[in-house]
Amino acid sequence: LKKNKTGFREKFIHQAQKASSFLCVGLDSDINKIPKHLKQSDDPIFEFNKSIIDATKDIVCAYKPNLAFYAAYGLKGYESLIKTVNYIPESIPVILDAKMNDIGNTAEMYAASVFNELQCDSVTFNPYMGFDSIEPFTHFEGKSVFALCLTSNSGSKDFQYMISDGKTVYEQVMNKLVEWKNKTGFEIGAVVGATHSEELKHLREIAPDTLFLIPGIGSQGGDLEKVCKYSGIKNYLALINVSRNVIYAGDGKDFATEVKKAAIKIRDEINSFID
Amino acid sequence: LKKNKTGFREKFIHQAQKASSFLCVGLDSDINKIPKHLKQSDDPIFEFNKSIIDATKDIVCAYKPNLAFYAAYGLKGYESLIKTVNYIPESIPVILDAKMNDIGNTAEMYAASVFNELQCDSVTFNPYMGFDSIEPFTHFEGKSVFALCLTSNSGSKDFQYMISDGKTVYEQVMNKLVEWKNKTGFEIGAVVGATHSEELKHLREIAPDTLFLIPGIGSQGGDLEKVCKYSGIKNYLALINVSRNVIYAGDGKDFATEVKKAAIKIRDEINSFID
Repeated sequence: LKKNKTGFREKFIHQAQKASSFLCVGLDSDINKIPKHLKQSDDPIFEFNKSIIDATKDIVCAYKPNLAFYAAYGLKGYESLIKTVNYIPESIPVILDAKMNDIGNTAEMYAASVFNELQCDSVTFNPYMGFDSIEPFTHFEGKSVFALCLTSNSGSKDFQYMISDGKTVYEQVMNKLVEWKNKTGFEIGAVVGATHSEELKHLREIAPDTLFLIPGIGSQGGDLEKVCKYSGIKNYLALINVSRNVIYAGDGKDFATEVKKAAIKIRDEINSFID
Repeated sequence: LKKNKTGFREKFIHQAQKASSFLCVGLDSDINKIPKHLKQSDDPIFEFNKSIIDATKDIVCAYKPNLAFYAAYGLKGYESLIKTVNYIPESIPVILDAKMNDIGNTAEMYAASVFNELQCDSVTFNPYMGFDSIEPFTHFEGKSVFALCLTSNSGSKDFQYMISDGKTVYEQVMNKLVEWKNKTGFEIGAVVGATHSEELKHLREIAPDTLFLIPGIGSQGGDLEKVCKYSGIKNYLALINVSRNVIYAGDGKDFATEVKKAAIKIRDEINSFID
């Protein structure tokens, strides 16, 4: 196991301070949506990501590539992912969005894939299978996991809002995440969708020291002002992820300029809502 | 989209009848556990899987490679996975165990990765994110998905047994899976761990026509007789997965002979419990 001297939280705070930013850019790079002139290159997805990273590395607190967008292109896609993760400056945290989940001996292999092979700083996780499915990740000192709690999509209504013992499933999940974080000493964060801002306020109360990764701003329609107010962002407790509204901000040869403008705009908007 | 003329269920039943078998072999191939003499080869994991497939292809109803064991070795691992899936005879269903889950536009990419790129017949899925996270998979005619319902591991106690509206979460999940199966006409199956045989009996009652993928026999200690009795296996409604107890049955140069013996023994044991 490779140990990091600096833990995930410290690395995130350092980059957030350096870039004055709580914006995490989601590298959900879809070959059908990238600028046409890149499609001739050997590795269009990597070329696209490289431009995005060059344009935004001083404006973001983290990057979050979503595994699905690379897996869709098989080996070639995995190569683009590896090159992308390697291209991101060492000082910027990389969160692989893979929503991993499996039984203990298999979870060990997933943890190895993301922390040893890909050398990412963090990974998203789906908690449905319970403690032994997250435990192997906690052996990787200095890394972190963001577990799904309340997701930003419409399907969050199907199971996450069910009430058990007077609490919703997502509250029960958050309580367990806090318990597991305390028990293991590992940086177990939570994914809380921006589309549920009132719930976010309540979740911050029951998890006062948990890092929140917040998707759902932009295309999905979350309320940025409320999210900034309720998420504990001023205490360096939240990363706000935006994917499509940043990475597809332009589609000409100068797309990177548009991407940079879009990232600065969102970063500054977030900062304007912090007291 | 590549359409299959034969649907997943028909393909499974055909192979189950041909091999007189409900045994699905889990290709959870760990480089640290494979026979020593294979480790010199260019692609030890593929060489191992090739021998397993040669030895068991007339004894199984399906194969289930678990993505984690390939992802752990990066690009080289994905190559081994692709070669393995291609090596499995076309008539035998391949279920990729990846417990995928994400929002709609991302779930589309996952579905493309498993059905178009890897050309698998089915994939496991984690239902925590609800309907829109499974819906894109249902566009792939002739394919199937097995959604986690009640898992075989100790962590299944953390959330799956919570009671809401007088029902456990896993019952609520099963009810939704049946509803989604009926609504989409897609082959949505369920993962139900063999370690919970009484619950399995009840789940079969509430989902009389759902395919069950049943892990947890062997290393995990599930009760095979009860599982065979309760799972609807005699009506071709269940696949029993065994991984470690088959694939690591031998470790010398003749390991494939031991693997074959182990597979036959479990297949015949399953058949002996069917009325």
